[in-house]
Amino acid sequence: MSSTEYLVDRRELQFVVNETLQAGKICELPDFAEFDEEMFTMIINEASTFAEQVLAPINQNGDRQGCRVENGAVVTPDGFADAWKKLGEGGWLSMSLPTEYGGQGIPEVIAVIGKETQMAANQGFTVGASLTTGAANLIYNFGSDVQKNDFCRKMFGGEWAGTMCLTEPHAGSAVGDVITSATRQEDGHYLIKGTKQFITNGDHDMSDNIVHLLLARTPDSQQGTKGISLFIVPKIRLDGVPNDIKLVSIEHKMGINGSPTCLLSFGDNDDCHGYLLEAENMGMEQMFKLMNEARLLVGLQGLAGASAAVQNAWDYAKERTQGPSSIHPGKKAPIIEFPDVRRMLMHMKAVTEGLRALMYTAAWYTDMANHGPEDDREKYQDLLDLHIPVCKAFGTDQGFDVARIGIQVLGGVGFTKDFPLEQNIRDQKIASIYEGTNGIQALDLVGRKFTVKNGQLLKTLEEELSWFDNRNLEGELNGWVAEWKNYRAVLMESIDCMKKIGEAKGQDGYLLYASNMMELIGDVLCCFHLLKQAETAQQKWNTMLSVVSSQDELLEENEEAQFYWNKLRTIEFYVWSILPRTLSNAKTIKNANLSPLNACL
Amino acid sequence: MSSTEYLVDRRELQFVVNETLQAGKICELPDFAEFDEEMFTMIINEASTFAEQVLAPINQNGDRQGCRVENGAVVTPDGFADAWKKLGEGGWLSMSLPTEYGGQGIPEVIAVIGKETQMAANQGFTVGASLTTGAANLIYNFGSDVQKNDFCRKMFGGEWAGTMCLTEPHAGSAVGDVITSATRQEDGHYLIKGTKQFITNGDHDMSDNIVHLLLARTPDSQQGTKGISLFIVPKIRLDGVPNDIKLVSIEHKMGINGSPTCLLSFGDNDDCHGYLLEAENMGMEQMFKLMNEARLLVGLQGLAGASAAVQNAWDYAKERTQGPSSIHPGKKAPIIEFPDVRRMLMHMKAVTEGLRALMYTAAWYTDMANHGPEDDREKYQDLLDLHIPVCKAFGTDQGFDVARIGIQVLGGVGFTKDFPLEQNIRDQKIASIYEGTNGIQALDLVGRKFTVKNGQLLKTLEEELSWFDNRNLEGELNGWVAEWKNYRAVLMESIDCMKKIGEAKGQDGYLLYASNMMELIGDVLCCFHLLKQAETAQQKWNTMLSVVSSQDELLEENEEAQFYWNKLRTIEFYVWSILPRTLSNAKTIKNANLSPLNACL
Repeated sequence: MSSTEYLVDRRELQFVVNETLQAGKICELPDFAEFDEEMFTMIINEASTFAEQVLAPINQNGDRQGCRVENGAVVTPDGFADAWKKLGEGGWLSMSLPTEYGGQGIPEVIAVIGKETQMAANQGFTVGASLTTGAANLIYNFGSDVQKNDFCRKMFGGEWAGTMCLTEPHAGSAVGDVITSATRQEDGHYLIKGTKQFITNGDHDMSDNIVHLLLARTPDSQQGTKGISLFIVPKIRLDGVPNDIKLVSIEHKMGINGSPTCLLSFGDNDDCHGYLLEAENMGMEQMFKLMNEARLLVGLQGLAGASAAVQNAWDYAKERTQGPSSIHPGKKAPIIEFPDVRRMLMHMKAVTEGLRALMYTAAWYTDMANHGPEDDREKYQDLLDLHIPVCKAFGTDQGFDVARIGIQVLGGVGFTKDFPLEQNIRDQKIASIYEGTNGIQALDLVGRKFTVKNGQLLKTLEEELSWFDNRNLEGELNGWVAEWKNYRAVLMESIDCMKKIGEAKGQDGYLLYASNMMELIGDVLCCFHLLKQAETAQQKWNTMLSVVSSQDELLEENEEAQFYWNKLRTIEFYVWSILPRTLSNAKTIKNANLSPLNACL
Repeated sequence: MSSTEYLVDRRELQFVVNETLQAGKICELPDFAEFDEEMFTMIINEASTFAEQVLAPINQNGDRQGCRVENGAVVTPDGFADAWKKLGEGGWLSMSLPTEYGGQGIPEVIAVIGKETQMAANQGFTVGASLTTGAANLIYNFGSDVQKNDFCRKMFGGEWAGTMCLTEPHAGSAVGDVITSATRQEDGHYLIKGTKQFITNGDHDMSDNIVHLLLARTPDSQQGTKGISLFIVPKIRLDGVPNDIKLVSIEHKMGINGSPTCLLSFGDNDDCHGYLLEAENMGMEQMFKLMNEARLLVGLQGLAGASAAVQNAWDYAKERTQGPSSIHPGKKAPIIEFPDVRRMLMHMKAVTEGLRALMYTAAWYTDMANHGPEDDREKYQDLLDLHIPVCKAFGTDQGFDVARIGIQVLGGVGFTKDFPLEQNIRDQKIASIYEGTNGIQALDLVGRKFTVKNGQLLKTLEEELSWFDNRNLEGELNGWVAEWKNYRAVLMESIDCMKKIGEAKGQDGYLLYASNMMELIGDVLCCFHLLKQAETAQQKWNTMLSVVSSQDELLEENEEAQFYWNKLRTIEFYVWSILPRTLSNAKTIKNANLSPLNACL
């Protein structure tokens, strides 16, 4: 670990993926038969090396130099084009994409490691990369064979990049308000006309072509989201002719300056060709089908920022000496020995590992929902659908907060550009906004996920959360799980409470404290997934302890023992010092105060 | 109000100062006999105009252009030198300084308005200005008559600026570790030698001279804080000879880029003259005496950032349309009509007004402690001493959070440099760090303020918080106060609980959750001061209501009525939707989990 660089915590990733989620077992599924645990370990190592050696070194420059427009085209920061080439050639864009067109077909629960570590090493670079994966995946899922042949292989390998063109200047969160038009021509292609805003990597110099996946409206289509279609709109057409797409400008932003955020004008000269994906008016449905992957990726930005922050802060606190501590009363002590600093670090560590437990489990749900035993697929899809808005909103809010605390641990130098934390927090801020604001995620959670299929998702969750009910737990874990169960009860009561408020006060009343419910369920879920880790860690710890004479002896210079010990201490902290946030959110939900609706606007 | 500019909310300030704190009554005190309420209103207006017309227009440029070093000296952004001149000439540096050397002698409860509005208009400019006021005040309080004559008038008027030189590269929070040396010469001056880091406005081109107030150690002085002395070290000596002070570099920072943060080297050529303030070894004591003013000023940075953020966000939410709302089901509605946006805005407003109530009351305590009836002065000093760490730490943490929510309200554009919020939050970040990190404020609160004078400060607070116990309250206010009393009880129980933990677990255990206590007491105090405002607002509202036929009629286009109505809704929100945070902090304190102390470092 380092206070100024990003190094992957390989031990933690191994623990989460192999020891807790037992990724090896996933190889028993037919779709993953060609993998084994050894290969997974290799992938973890390669992914870590790629993040550390290719992406991390150009992170700071991505921010300082940023992107610029020259002769109507975006120039990316030094080193970005070369890293992009390595990203494509290394197969990192297509880790979890199907093998058919050169993808790697790696299970999500393993691919997520690449995604987290790349993002942690360089948010500005990686946000653009993940859009290419997303766009390629849409073409793979909904394109014709010809379209797949034309686009997938090149996009999977990074020769061509991709974007998602949804937002327009007047239509941000309300995607249904899109007015960009698509008019069918006799030979089957469409002419696109409109302006798209906030297009991540909308133009750049890292690839030979850029393939825009663009939402537009055909003439006389239905109003709102039901009249929207999805088009493939390449920057350069397949015959080599430049398409009629103009880069109007790039945004000047708080962070992710390595990623050009573009305003694009399509069809200024009435010659922008687009190719319909599947059929007209399917746009929203298609987007929805791949939304879980996209939202998990944004959630991972929060986890990634947090994971970089906690290691920077932890290491700084070990290096920096200042005044005496209770451990070193006579002399200058490292600030990590001060109680308030320890509390901050432990909070950062607990939240980060909680988010990782949450999101890696969501990745595992994805695998099980798509490749698991047929009978279980619906269950895992339900769990995934419920987890996704939490990964996205709770993940990015908490990730930002972890970086904030990290700056606090560093003190004055944390505010300077000599340390990476001030960039980390600026880069992260966008994650709570794009891919559906966190407010919209909260509405998705309570307004959609709680209610679809007659509340089936919640029932599935309730069953999943009964995991510990009939298990024999030992020692301190017993008390932790008992305490967590109290909060599980608070969650269930709060959900009931919201329903009653909705019945009494209507839809606006029901939605008013959706964000509190988001935070509440986020804490209960993160802690749940951590407690499952605790069971594993406790077994390993106990085994190690049984062959030595004392705990102190075991902890002395034994890094494995220290890992399990700290893992247990971290989860203990989540239970007793973070979970209480649940009480605040539950009380606010219960109070159901309507003053925001009654105030004069 | 505006989504892109800062405009002072004059109505709110009038309400807080004149209607609630009854500033007019302060003129009955002999020291303020020359003032009256009309003059206060005039000052509020002039301060507002200065902030809006002089400081706000150069705020963005201060960030974009920033400071640079040319020929070994700092060049400030365009417009800063001119604004500094107006600041000095207008008497804004010396609002609350004594009249003797050209100060204005304005009561703190009025001066605080100038300080808040200047900071809200331009944090980068104002942080430097407030250091000049602080340095001048130190000389006024502890300097000899000759020193006061030499320095005070010029500093009060801004011809000369001031700095505080405390931090050294190896001594940040631990001021006692300072090693800069001061060696007495035969003629009485001292030779200063050492390096000072993070010196706000340590060099610049806005004034004819810069007067450093510098902490140093005389030969053979006692170790730690008891051996530190305070020196006046001017950039240019009184005889016009440049002193031996070298600007080494300026920091590259996340925010407040309009303020040069300097690394200064004193006495490289053994010719840096310093002049002792009062006597040797008094440095820490002198700093402590003026620490309350300094820490309140930093707290005000949080309030100021919050107040700018809430108006930017509120106005944007009224301008921006997006999808249908329950109020406008058929068409595009302003996003302020959506419940989640309303909740965010109300949260921002409630926290901002809570912080203002807290800090303006602290300013009023300052006046009463220094100028009030002799018999009451100790009481007000006690209340002030307890409030100050809360103003500083709770104020800056919450101010940052309000700006964070503001960006969320704006969505994508909030992340761009087209709107002022992304600069606001970057500028604010430093406030939780300097002038004693917020962690140190929490230790000051529980380790010092709770325990000094045998716990007398807490007893005084408890008495003050019994304010509502025998009052006749009407209508909804009755229920709000009753609810707040529950949280008051939680506060008192939590304080007891911490004491017991300290007895059982020692000092580190006692201090571990100090920051939770800070947040807990912050909410209880802010809400207390808001409820006092509620009593006033309710009376005015009821009076207005009594002469019309309905509430709806009253609210129609009557801005005064809307003000009181919204003030009441805001306080209602604090009681039912923010105060519950108290439960989380109380439970965490009670759990007293020691895992951060038990983890391996």
